[in-house]
Amino acid sequence: MSTDQFTFTVSKTDGTARTGEIRMPRGVIRTPAFMPVGTAGTVKAMYPDQVKALGADVVLGNTYHLMLRPGAERVAQLGGLHKFMNWPYPILTDSGGFQVMSLAALRKIDETGVTFQSHIDGSTHVMTPERSIEIQGLLGSDIQMQLDECVKLPCTDEVAEKAMRLSLRWAERCKIAFGDQPGKAMFGIVQGGAMEALRIESATQLSALDLKGYAIGGLAVGEPQDVMLRMIEIVEPHLPTTKPRYLMGVGTPDDIVEAVRRGIDMFDCVMPTRAGRHGQVFTRHGRLNMRNAKHAEDTRPLDAESKCAASNSYSRAYLHHLVRSNEILGMMLLTWNNLAYYQELMAGLRKAIAEGRLNDHIAEVKEGWAAGERAGIAEHADNVAIAGED
Amino acid sequence: MSTDQFTFTVSKTDGTARTGEIRMPRGVIRTPAFMPVGTAGTVKAMYPDQVKALGADVVLGNTYHLMLRPGAERVAQLGGLHKFMNWPYPILTDSGGFQVMSLAALRKIDETGVTFQSHIDGSTHVMTPERSIEIQGLLGSDIQMQLDECVKLPCTDEVAEKAMRLSLRWAERCKIAFGDQPGKAMFGIVQGGAMEALRIESATQLSALDLKGYAIGGLAVGEPQDVMLRMIEIVEPHLPTTKPRYLMGVGTPDDIVEAVRRGIDMFDCVMPTRAGRHGQVFTRHGRLNMRNAKHAEDTRPLDAESKCAASNSYSRAYLHHLVRSNEILGMMLLTWNNLAYYQELMAGLRKAIAEGRLNDHIAEVKEGWAAGERAGIAEHADNVAIAGED
Repeated sequence: MSTDQFTFTVSKTDGTARTGEIRMPRGVIRTPAFMPVGTAGTVKAMYPDQVKALGADVVLGNTYHLMLRPGAERVAQLGGLHKFMNWPYPILTDSGGFQVMSLAALRKIDETGVTFQSHIDGSTHVMTPERSIEIQGLLGSDIQMQLDECVKLPCTDEVAEKAMRLSLRWAERCKIAFGDQPGKAMFGIVQGGAMEALRIESATQLSALDLKGYAIGGLAVGEPQDVMLRMIEIVEPHLPTTKPRYLMGVGTPDDIVEAVRRGIDMFDCVMPTRAGRHGQVFTRHGRLNMRNAKHAEDTRPLDAESKCAASNSYSRAYLHHLVRSNEILGMMLLTWNNLAYYQELMAGLRKAIAEGRLNDHIAEVKEGWAAGERAGIAEHADNVAIAGED
Repeated sequence: MSTDQFTFTVSKTDGTARTGEIRMPRGVIRTPAFMPVGTAGTVKAMYPDQVKALGADVVLGNTYHLMLRPGAERVAQLGGLHKFMNWPYPILTDSGGFQVMSLAALRKIDETGVTFQSHIDGSTHVMTPERSIEIQGLLGSDIQMQLDECVKLPCTDEVAEKAMRLSLRWAERCKIAFGDQPGKAMFGIVQGGAMEALRIESATQLSALDLKGYAIGGLAVGEPQDVMLRMIEIVEPHLPTTKPRYLMGVGTPDDIVEAVRRGIDMFDCVMPTRAGRHGQVFTRHGRLNMRNAKHAEDTRPLDAESKCAASNSYSRAYLHHLVRSNEILGMMLLTWNNLAYYQELMAGLRKAIAEGRLNDHIAEVKEGWAAGERAGIAEHADNVAIAGED
């Protein structure tokens, strides 16, 4: 199935949406794809074979965390991240830049790169575009991301433009550093805040670099959903149709279906895993907060029709008990359910695109969520903060 | 395989040790048996099907925890503990008395029972022998334990005697409360501190009650191993050979093999699960502390010859990383490894007794631990505090 080259083929389009396959030596990624986040070399509270069995073709590793602990050189010495974490399938790594900005202390950014102190032990590190690619190479990552500067929204036009232009220059440096690796890929990242002109310029200039894939970064950082979707719509016509498009750090199930509709092929988000550790579940009938006392005597499973044991074999009353008791098994089962739902959502979207009925399918998916709300099955659940690491 | 009656048959003896089967409607317990502790309706950090697959025939539930949360009446309403926790096989429950003594606030003990306040919400509860049996019945427990008074060692003879006699009177009340339940069992508990005469009197008088099984309680509460083993040796001749003997809350692998040699059939202990959550592992080559920096670049699995994936498929370097990073997967894998080792230990003891070579087998097992020490494989690991709940 896999090849010795990194390739992307679109097998079917439906409006702007498309379904296809990314192939590489370590496996095939069916798109649109959701990538579970494995921050520190583990998709939290999941065995790797469970993650694969749910239909995940690729997981994300966080360069910032792994470079600090256990260290990129150590991972390389141990045979690379795939072997280290028992995940022989594709791995995408971020550049580390996003976490440097959100987690590290004493960050200093200039043309060269970012200097920062570890949030673990206070040690000082320098992250340049070249070092980011070097680290991702030491980890053995199949899809590597350029170092970029991601600004928080809202921001001034000047800040957005400065970060976008720096990110473009860093993309060129990362391309050179990455060089020629036929079985792997380095993706560029479109920046530009919420400014349409900046986003278009970023996409156009990155496209000219003829990279193997393109991400849209700097979204899902606090802006309303309509701003995010508008930016996707603005950027999409300026990205090559022949390359995968990855919307970084997104998102809720609703964010994902709307972004797929607008032509996005790849997603990652901590939401299903982090929410699962905080008592929140995603189902075809919407979201539930398992801490809620109303589940205490409910003998129904989360979803009797799901193929996932976490969803079909444990009562809501039991899950409620585990969450209330802070039991590890509660986190294990809720995370499992959530990742199962996300993968089921992606499989449904892929099938609907292949059948040319994406809009109808999305309407049905949303009807499922809304029916849950009407039946009082779903409930308001506080949003779990989204960030790029889990 | 199972029957509608609770029965115990010894198939082979080897010195004082014996191997056999406890049968009951929910399944067969192969003895000597180790019962993983499922305090609050979950063997921590394990899916129930994993626990069964390792060879556990029975798990222990803690009455104190379950009566407070989610509540015995609620568990009964939800169909019983087996259904609640997805464990259709035998369950043994303790009486709740040990945890009342160790966890609850404002305990007051008299002839009637124990009055205490919940450590969760401060609510006041009364635990009598009859209420303990009622609660264990509501949970649906297959093997129920009498309420007893367990004293800390060392203690004065007067304290030990008073607690032993109270426990004897409570055993009679529990027997009456339990009544006639052919498929289930109520076990008495031998008390008497470290006083030989008291232990013998307790065992003799409990035997006269013709209960379905007998536990030895009040050991592994801080006394040296030789005191514990001496108490087992003293008590054993005074217990009927036709009934299972359960050493409560024990223990280390070494405690277990020595107690099996002295005729014990059943064990429970939090050690494998609790140690697994604190970075410590048990192997054929002794104990390891995975926090230790010496594992950071060790690509070997914990035990390449084990059939357990946690033991044979993940490098020590990776486990070290997970433990250092406080990752849930680290607790999951170490707990899994430890329970696998404990069940492997029990299977080996059963086989050796059946083959009439227990002493040789125990010598080989201990040689494995010692060889690990000599090779620097095993290392001093701080003992994880042992207590009756996990």
